[in-house]
Formats: sequence, structure tokens, C-alpha cells
Amino acid sequence: MEDKAKIQEAIKVQGEVVRKLKSEKANKEQIDEEVAKLLELKARLGGDDGKHQFVLKTAKGTRDYNPKQMAIREKVFNTIINCFKRHGAETIDTPVFELKETLTGKYGEDSKLIYDLKDQGGELLSLRYDLTVPFARYLAMNKITNIKRYHIAKVYRRDNPAMTRGRYREFYQCDFDIAGQYDAMIPDAECLRIVHEILSELDLGDFRIKVNDRRILDGMFAVCGVPDDKFRTICSTVDKLDKMPWEDVKKEMVNEKGLSEEAAEQIGEYVSMQGGKTLAERLLQDHKISQSKQACAGLSDIKLLFSYLELFHITDKVVFDLSLARGLDYYTGVIYEALLTQAGVAQISTEAQNGATSEENVSVGSVAGGGRYDGLVGMFDPKGRKVPCVGVSIGIERIFSIMEQKAESSAEKVRTTEVQVMVASAQKNLLEERLKLVTELWNAGIKAEVMYKKNPKLLSQLQHCEESGIPLVAILGEQELKDGVVKLRVVATREEADIARDHLIGEIRRRTSEA
Amino acid sequence: MEDKAKIQEAIKVQGEVVRKLKSEKANKEQIDEEVAKLLELKARLGGDDGKHQFVLKTAKGTRDYNPKQMAIREKVFNTIINCFKRHGAETIDTPVFELKETLTGKYGEDSKLIYDLKDQGGELLSLRYDLTVPFARYLAMNKITNIKRYHIAKVYRRDNPAMTRGRYREFYQCDFDIAGQYDAMIPDAECLRIVHEILSELDLGDFRIKVNDRRILDGMFAVCGVPDDKFRTICSTVDKLDKMPWEDVKKEMVNEKGLSEEAAEQIGEYVSMQGGKTLAERLLQDHKISQSKQACAGLSDIKLLFSYLELFHITDKVVFDLSLARGLDYYTGVIYEALLTQAGVAQISTEAQNGATSEENVSVGSVAGGGRYDGLVGMFDPKGRKVPCVGVSIGIERIFSIMEQKAESSAEKVRTTEVQVMVASAQKNLLEERLKLVTELWNAGIKAEVMYKKNPKLLSQLQHCEESGIPLVAILGEQELKDGVVKLRVVATREEADIARDHLIGEIRRRTSEA
Repeated sequence: MEDKAKIQEAIKVQGEVVRKLKSEKANKEQIDEEVAKLLELKARLGGDDGKHQFVLKTAKGTRDYNPKQMAIREKVFNTIINCFKRHGAETIDTPVFELKETLTGKYGEDSKLIYDLKDQGGELLSLRYDLTVPFARYLAMNKITNIKRYHIAKVYRRDNPAMTRGRYREFYQCDFDIAGQYDAMIPDAECLRIVHEILSELDLGDFRIKVNDRRILDGMFAVCGVPDDKFRTICSTVDKLDKMPWEDVKKEMVNEKGLSEEAAEQIGEYVSMQGGKTLAERLLQDHKISQSKQACAGLSDIKLLFSYLELFHITDKVVFDLSLARGLDYYTGVIYEALLTQAGVAQISTEAQNGATSEENVSVGSVAGGGRYDGLVGMFDPKGRKVPCVGVSIGIERIFSIMEQKAESSAEKVRTTEVQVMVASAQKNLLEERLKLVTELWNAGIKAEVMYKKNPKLLSQLQHCEESGIPLVAILGEQELKDGVVKLRVVATREEADIARDHLIGEIRRRTSEA
Repeated sequence: MEDKAKIQEAIKVQGEVVRKLKSEKANKEQIDEEVAKLLELKARLGGDDGKHQFVLKTAKGTRDYNPKQMAIREKVFNTIINCFKRHGAETIDTPVFELKETLTGKYGEDSKLIYDLKDQGGELLSLRYDLTVPFARYLAMNKITNIKRYHIAKVYRRDNPAMTRGRYREFYQCDFDIAGQYDAMIPDAECLRIVHEILSELDLGDFRIKVNDRRILDGMFAVCGVPDDKFRTICSTVDKLDKMPWEDVKKEMVNEKGLSEEAAEQIGEYVSMQGGKTLAERLLQDHKISQSKQACAGLSDIKLLFSYLELFHITDKVVFDLSLARGLDYYTGVIYEALLTQAGVAQISTEAQNGATSEENVSVGSVAGGGRYDGLVGMFDPKGRKVPCVGVSIGIERIFSIMEQKAESSAEKVRTTEVQVMVASAQKNLLEERLKLVTELWNAGIKAEVMYKKNPKLLSQLQHCEESGIPLVAILGEQELKDGVVKLRVVATREEADIARDHLIGEIRRRTSEA
């Protein structure tokens, strides 16, 4: 087995790490992570009985959701799903794993983050990395050329988890996509409208949606003298502009990617530009960029897009930003990204600064992104038939973190159940009567609970109501049974009233619909 | 690469299989499966260009859910979740994979069906096999001693898939469990009440809930002379009684498991017994079984359970059945299983008979099961502290199959979106006006769609409404714009009325809340 001495040595070192962090008053979550490592080592050492000690934890980079987190999650999902439904979306589901081959060649360098299943003498399988590639596979496989669908499900990336910054190896994606051959920019504009609606409704503070187009980027690279075969790699470097200053980006272009100083300078001028419809119009007149047909096509579409965004009343938050690049290979047209610009985000990034390199802080506000990918479905079709698609993915984990923090700091308690009434008794030997009454309530569709004890104390029944936010208690006693009534108590005010048994259900409905 | 000639030979053989099935008029799904295999072979052969052809399929034993299936799934989930909430349950979520070690030693022989992830130089991970073991791990890890929770999520088993019979390698489980030290049989009875409510509300036809107790089984084995170390294996054999006749079960006990003929005969007598509270009372007087303390404890609890089931008004469907054994090792007390006894089930089992061995048909009606497992949480606690638990798992995939068949055979169309109104135009050049109006509707929270075309034909807009069940169309034309009205058309009746623009939202709300 394991070398006991080695583990003991590791425990010593890890103990030092924890002590150091504590003395430096590092943030709580970071300390917790290191303490967990320490406990794991100690567990490996085993007890005195020499028995193998079980490591009680979830897999690295994953977490359980407790009832309170689930209640918040449900609320966020409902807001998002309602918005998707308001825009007429259907939903589909795909398996959590795909043939490995399906994912191959779709994610560039990030392919190394794909989780493979063990080869157990069958097909080679991988956990899905996102919902977009399974969606494209689904469209090609079922020969679907028109669909507006949402898909909310977990995806998997073997990234170095930074859980204190809300990054996990297992996390949810919330995708909305429109597939089909339509007139330019109408579905694209609706995707932006959806982002706007969701971020407004979730009330996460102010936000901005950056928009650009891959064809503009490519055209800009061409007119600035970037060789064709360097478009993608230069694009990746531009993508870092939200994480590092221009000077560093330029250095990477010149020193690492071998771009000329002048080309880099010219790119630098363009990527500093931000604006709206008029910027697109101005660039269409720009003597240089207008030489690129591609760029012109992109710029005209941006112009058209903004005219639709005006009709959708969302131009206040949308900005045409030539520095927006986005990492994924498969985008072919419009791309966009939404960022939170205040409030909750500030807290998160402050927290992130402990132990995080500065690069990772700046883009922490990104909560949605997407774009047009007209070629992906064709990669799956045996005859290469294309289905144009545009979509958006909501960065739900970051939103959860913010909502959780809001809930923490709010005075209002998050309820984890929806129980309307607790059936209780003040005296002994009334279990049967309690079960009879709770059955009546369940039959009427009322959410009701009873304690699983023969003779619970009234106080502990009332305490349970206080703790879990149950608004009403229906109390039974000998006298009430004799009189054919139930004592209905309002937990918040402690008011009590005798209600005739026949009227109880109506009374509970009346009181809980008021709330 | 692959030997072309070999694949061509395989294609020939597979072609024969498909032709034969078609000539025999085998069921559609079976033919589809074989056709899929044929297509896969053809894909492997590749095109004339010699390029590697992509196999366009989901992993073996998995499937996509299309929008119609999702709509049905959502309906079923809502019914189940509402019931869980009515009984005061919270919900949690756990990761899709666990440390391999967490699952080890929990599932007996079935452990071979666990999906392992590839060892990529980190922890050894496995996909969860059920939701019960992760729940127990969660309780132990968080030192929770009291909770009533539901969990709806996918689980994974590398079983030989029989997809035509609704069995998959990836499938949903819907679990409800009550953890905590309570007075006997109260939570157990509530679990049965929940099964009763759900199966009644889903309207799946008549059903029965079989109940037994592990202690009664063990006591019975003891008094019939089964050696202690054979309890579990004999229990597994008894568990097959719903799939094979007593004679075969007896043969397995005597010939394979080495039980004496007399012992087997005695077991045979007991396991043929079915009844209710009075059967439990009679067995408590039985000179033989009453010699076992364990059995008596179990029988007393069954008696008590039935007295609570009477108060819950569900004894009409519950039967105490001594042949019920259930496979899982971790049960320690009451066990139960719900079976559909008519209607939808008949269709499924008829279908299943094609290509299925007769053994697999009989138990096809099982749609829920569970029991008490007081030792599982203790297996995870470093100090072995026990948390008594009882729970139930709803066999949701089988229920989906039945609901899908019901939907197929019903005249009513399953809607996959909730769109209330389509914003349309009869004339050209009204895209802007349509976008303006749809924005007004979205702002008012109305579910509305617009076609992504500059100048769609009115007919194609109306057709879309017919196909997707949208009840209303708001039609804009030059004249309507001039008059400040919108023509509101009821799709079903083709009635049209001019509505003042200011009143449109109210009118749409009124008409769609009526429906």
C-alpha cells in the first residue's frame, strides 16, 4: 500500500500551508480547500485499527447542491426558462456522453479538457464538453433544418478548478439556439434581446453586451497584413484583451506569434474602437478596412443588427466592440458576450483576487456569450449540408454565485420547501387524528406536513414551522375534536382561531393565496 | 483501416436481417434498431472519396429526447415534483460522477455494470449507478441526521440495453427519501402514500403495491432451515418469482444453491401467501415463523404499517406479499414495489414479446420500488454513526413510455411550445412593424413569435400556427396601422376581429387564460 512515512511527511507540509494561510488571513474558501487536502491525507494514513479509511468527498472540481442552493437554482432556472418559452423555444435533451469521435476536432486546444470514459470493450465515449456540438449532431442525425430550442444541462471540463472563483469541472449550461435559413440578423437580434431580458429580470445590476463579427475580425487581420494561416492564432491573442493590457497582447503577437510590429500597431488601432451603428457606418467608409469584402459583409450586418436592436429597445446596453474575439473555432458571423458591470460582480472579483492571478479577475463579469455558427451542423452531415445556426449560452454558474451571495446578505430567509400547513397536536395519543387530518389536506392538494412521532411536543412542532418558514399550523386537541373544529395558528403573529373542520381547507387556501 | 470486403459482407447479412423482420412484420422499433445497425455499417464503408465517414449516432443504450418527448417528460415530472412538494420535500443535487471508492461494495454483483471514467492521472471516478448511494454519502459528509428530500437525475448502468422494452444505459431516477430517527412506520407509510398519489394522478390504469420486510424474509429463511450464509443468495432467487414460475425458482434453490428439498418446499409455502393486516396477525401466531424474533419484529411492523395505511386511505391497493424480495443488499426493513396491472402495460408487454425472452415480460409492470435502509449512511460515516432512512424510487422511464404511447394514440396533439400569439403580416415591408409589436408583447410577458423573414407569406405564417398549436394570430397591415388596430385571428375558428392597439394585450390575456 502507501508509504506511511511519506504520507506523514506530506501531512506536515500541508499543515504548514494551512497555518500560513490562516496567519495571512487568506479567504475562507481557500483555507477550506487546503484543510480538505490535509484531512484527505490524514484519512489516507488511516486509523489505529489499520483499516482503510474512506475519503468522504465529491470528485475534484465538483460539488453537491444543498436544498438552499437548489431553491435559488430553481428560481434562476425558472426565470430563464420562462424567457426562452416567451420566445417560443422548444426543448430537447441529449445523453451526457457522446461517441468520442463526435467531439473530436471541435474545440481546438481545449480538447485536452474532455473527460473520456474508460474503454470497457465497447464504444469510445466522452462526457459532453458543451451543448452546442451535441445539438449540431442532433440536427444532422435527425435531418432537422428548422428549430428554436433551449437546452439546460450539465457539461464537463477537466479544467484546473478554481472553485473559489465559481469555476467547476461539472457545471450547467443554459443554451438557446435558432437553426434555419432565415433573413439576415433577425434571429441574431432575438438572441441579444433574450440576453437583455434575462439579465434585466434576474436583477444582477447593470450590464453591457459586446458585439462583433468574425468576418470583421478576419477582414481586419487581412488588411492589417496578417498572413492567412495566422488568423486563428492572432484571433486567440486578441481574445485576451479583456484579460490583459494591449501592450502585453501586442508583445504576444509580435514576439510569440511572429507578427510584424506595423501589423500589430494597425490591429491595435482597430481593436480600441467601440460604438454602435454609426461606428459600423464609419468603418464601411474606412479606406483600409473597406478593401475587405468579408469585413464589409460583417459591417453591413452589424448595421442591420443594430436597426433591429433599436426596434427591440435594447441598444442602451449593446456596444459594437472590435476587440471582442471569442475563443471557439466554429463561429462564422456575429459574436457577442454579456458582462456585468457592477454590484454583485464587484464582490466576486474582490474575493477572486485572493490567490488568483490578476489575469483571471478582469473577465469575471462575463455572464453570457454566443454567436453564429453556420458550418458546424455540416461537419456532421454525410453530404456536408449546412444548417445556419445562431445561439447564446447563459453563464449560469456565475449567476448562481451572485444570487447566493445576495441571499446570504439579505434578511429574507430562503425557503427550501413549500409547505403551507403543519398538522400538530398539543396532547398525547393523537397521532391517528393527525394522520387523518393530513390525509384530508393532501387529498385537497394542500402542501402539508406532520411530525413522524407518536407524541411530539407542541413546542418542537412550532419550532419546525419557524425554522422552515411554514406559515400555518393546524392544531388538534381533545376539545377541538369534540367541537368539530381545528385551531388554526398563524406562525408569524401567533394568532389562533377555531375553524370548523368543514371550512378548514377553504380557510387554508384563502390564507396562503394571500401571502 | 477496416477491411472493406468484411464490412460489405456484414452489410449483406444485416440487410437480410432487416428484410426478414420487415417480412415478419416485426414491431417498428425493432426494425428501426436493425436499420440503424445497417446504416452504421454503410457509414463505416465510407464514400467513394475514401474519406473517413463519420458514424452519426448516440452512444449505445442512450437516446436523445425530442421536443415532443420533452413536453411529455415535463408533464410527468411536474406531477411527481408537485406530489413530493405537497409532502414537504426539499431537493438536492449531487455530481454525475463519484469517487469510484464511494460506489464500491454497495451493489453486489451489479457492480460490474458501473461506468468508470478513464484514469487520466487524477482520482478514479465512476458515473453514479443510482441516487441512493450518493444521497447516503451526502448525509454522512455533511453530518445531516434529518432530511426529507427528493432528487430527480440521470443514472448510468452498462447493462445490455433493451431499448425496445424501454431499458436504457442512461435513464432518469426520481427518488424521495426520509432520513431520521422517527417512530416506527410513520415515514414508511408516507412513502407508500406518495406512490399511491403519483400513480393515481398520472392515470396509468390500475396498480398494486406489494409490501414485505427483509426481517420477515430472513426469519422465514431461518425457520425453514436455510444456512445463515445463504440468506442473501436465496433471497436473490426468491426475487425472481415475479419473472419465473415457482418450479424453476425451486430448482435454482435446490440444484444451484444447494438447498435441501424440504427447506425449499417450506419456503414455497410461505412465499405463496398474500394478504393484509390479518395475514400479518395470522403469521404472528404461526407456530413456526413466530420462533424467529426477527420475523416477529417485521410482522408487527407490517401490522402497524397497515394501520397507518388505513388512515391514509390507501389499503385498497396495498398487499402484503411474502414473495417480494428486491435485489439490493442495503435494505434492512420494509420493502415495497408498485406494479401496473392493466391498460398501458398490456401494450408494452405485447411489444416486448417481440425479441424478448419470456422472463423479461412479466415484471414489465413494475413502476416504483423502495424500502428501508438503516445501515447505508453508517457505511460512509468514519465512526459508523447510523442514520435510518426509508425511500422510494419512481421508475420514470417506463412511465414515459406509457405516456408516449398514450399521446400517440390520442387525437389531441402534444404542444411543444407555449406560444400564445404569432405576430404576422399580410403585406410586404412590414418587418419593422412586426418587430415593434412583438416587442410590446414580450414586454408585457406574452409568449409571442414572429417569422424570421422580411416578407413571409400570410399562408405560411398561418400554417406555422396550425402546426405548432398557436391559438392566436395578431395580423398587421397598412390599413390596421392607419386605424391603430390589430386584426386578432383565432386559429381554430378563423374568426377575426379588429382590436384597438391599446387593448390588444388585455384581449390576448383574456383569450388565452380562458383556454
